[in-house]
Amino acid sequence: MTRIHNFSAGPAVLPESVLREAQEAIWEHGGHGIGILECSHRSAQFDAVIDSARARIKRLMNLSDSQHILFLHGGARTQFFMLPMNVLRGGRATYLDTGTWAEGAAKDARRYGTVDVPFSSKATGWDHVPATLDTPPEGTVYLHYTSNNTVAGTEFHHVPDVGVPLVCDMSSDIMSRPVDGSKFQFIYAGAQKNMGPSGVTLAILEDSWLERCDKDIPEMLQYGIHVKKESMYNTPCTFGIYVIERVTAWLEGLGGLEAIDRMNQSQADRVYGEIDRTGFWHGKAQLGSRSRMNITFTTGDADLDTRFHKEAAAAGLSGLKGHRSVGGLRASIYNAQTDAAVDALVAFMGDFEARNG
Amino acid sequence: MTRIHNFSAGPAVLPESVLREAQEAIWEHGGHGIGILECSHRSAQFDAVIDSARARIKRLMNLSDSQHILFLHGGARTQFFMLPMNVLRGGRATYLDTGTWAEGAAKDARRYGTVDVPFSSKATGWDHVPATLDTPPEGTVYLHYTSNNTVAGTEFHHVPDVGVPLVCDMSSDIMSRPVDGSKFQFIYAGAQKNMGPSGVTLAILEDSWLERCDKDIPEMLQYGIHVKKESMYNTPCTFGIYVIERVTAWLEGLGGLEAIDRMNQSQADRVYGEIDRTGFWHGKAQLGSRSRMNITFTTGDADLDTRFHKEAAAAGLSGLKGHRSVGGLRASIYNAQTDAAVDALVAFMGDFEARNG
Repeated sequence: MTRIHNFSAGPAVLPESVLREAQEAIWEHGGHGIGILECSHRSAQFDAVIDSARARIKRLMNLSDSQHILFLHGGARTQFFMLPMNVLRGGRATYLDTGTWAEGAAKDARRYGTVDVPFSSKATGWDHVPATLDTPPEGTVYLHYTSNNTVAGTEFHHVPDVGVPLVCDMSSDIMSRPVDGSKFQFIYAGAQKNMGPSGVTLAILEDSWLERCDKDIPEMLQYGIHVKKESMYNTPCTFGIYVIERVTAWLEGLGGLEAIDRMNQSQADRVYGEIDRTGFWHGKAQLGSRSRMNITFTTGDADLDTRFHKEAAAAGLSGLKGHRSVGGLRASIYNAQTDAAVDALVAFMGDFEARNG
Repeated sequence: MTRIHNFSAGPAVLPESVLREAQEAIWEHGGHGIGILECSHRSAQFDAVIDSARARIKRLMNLSDSQHILFLHGGARTQFFMLPMNVLRGGRATYLDTGTWAEGAAKDARRYGTVDVPFSSKATGWDHVPATLDTPPEGTVYLHYTSNNTVAGTEFHHVPDVGVPLVCDMSSDIMSRPVDGSKFQFIYAGAQKNMGPSGVTLAILEDSWLERCDKDIPEMLQYGIHVKKESMYNTPCTFGIYVIERVTAWLEGLGGLEAIDRMNQSQADRVYGEIDRTGFWHGKAQLGSRSRMNITFTTGDADLDTRFHKEAAAAGLSGLKGHRSVGGLRASIYNAQTDAAVDALVAFMGDFEARNG
């Protein structure tokens, strides 16, 4: 069966070489005579997988020895409440309101302390991220931001450095460009955009926050327990961790984040170039905030947008419908997106314009 | 590569036909041109999977129309606190202390109300489950029990019916015998023993408890939200749900729970028969409480036990070491365990006894 071009926002396209490895590993993995779905999380077979995943992530993201790499359950969304439950504890935090998920994170945080929102682009459809920020109030425990906003199609192209501990939801652009991960107090990301299948969440906690973490909450919600048990307090999503290990191996094989950065820039340039070519298409994000992962655009005519994504799907380009909350069109071109898919999209956009422009 | 005989307690052996299907589906699934890891959870492709999984579970477990079938994150362990957080709310519940996981569930419940423990076999290594129970105190919100205890190797062979709503952690024997699921107010089970890979948890909630559920907790922890959003409040573990759907299809193809019940009984009879044959081996669970899923046994000599599981592993029988908290030996023979593996185990036990008896 032929594979089509998949522009889904997540779960999303994965490297075909990793899919081939996963197919093999499901039957038998690593010479152990046991498939990767069936091996105990407390086996030498799986230890090698999770240890390698941690080592690769540490290298790729330039993490320090004092940052704990955790593989948790519950999606990034569980971190929306788990983080402030553990560390906010009646204190004050700054949240940047750059999209649906940023807003959800702030909402959960309000249960556990005071939330300042010095920036919001909600009134203009979350079409940009802040270029500059004032220093947060005295005593701010952390600044939380969402580095890439999948629904609106915006992205931070810098790390907002305002002198307080940084927390970042990197779900949809993690490892898409070089990053100094050691700058962050806490990083989290669902796997299902740039790292693997859904069902596993990467969390990276700087050791200095362990002391601050609440120890009077259920053990499954305590970062301290997961750190101490090395993500094995209960059975983790072993297959998800396996795929993350293979995807990070693929990234290292390509040449690391510098290499994927160039590929991502090139692919984004091609799609935005087509959007900007004549005026038929309109990019939804402001120029300086355009995402390289989720490209949101429209013809300006809802019916025509619908015709586009339906005709595209029929032509083997799937997942181009915008998020249901905003409509329009969206092309998700994460790390594993192929040049062939991007070229096919650009060609189809040109053809569609020729027929409808 | 040859597959060995895998007696792991979980993640555990899966049906080989399902592994073959999963291998195919990772490349391309259902004629959609997209692999199962890469398809959106909000696609017709995935809707067909999750709808079928729910329908099969409902048929197999004889669930009623008022029972909501959820696929959640976090393992069974998250249900230890999520259930009482939602429904106990200062009330009183009865917990039966039949093992490590039952004890953990009771510990979490104490955060949210009064916990009565009318039965404990902890003093004798959790070697039995209760045969009879008194009626719980007036006002008891529910009785919680663990139907199969993986560490101790005991199992309830009846449903304790004492006139209060029943809650059951069925993680390690779910769908291993006919069950009238409609009797239960709440059922939960991690997938990684009898249903699929780790990373997804089945929860079955009777509708009448929705009103009782706390609505002033983070949305990710509210059963009501997950019911309303049909397990799509955030991205679920899509691949885990896919495997559950395939495993339940395999079960229905075999003839349902009556058929697997006969197979499980036959396999357990063969292993216990060998344990009881001469007196060389000692079963750890009391006779009426023996688990058909996790068979715990010992030679009575820790060094000899170690030699057994090491020699067995070298002979291609893996995972026979007892849980690290209790030592000894354990053979996990879940639904997907093969007759060939059981025969090989029994033969190896006989051979080992001949050499060491």
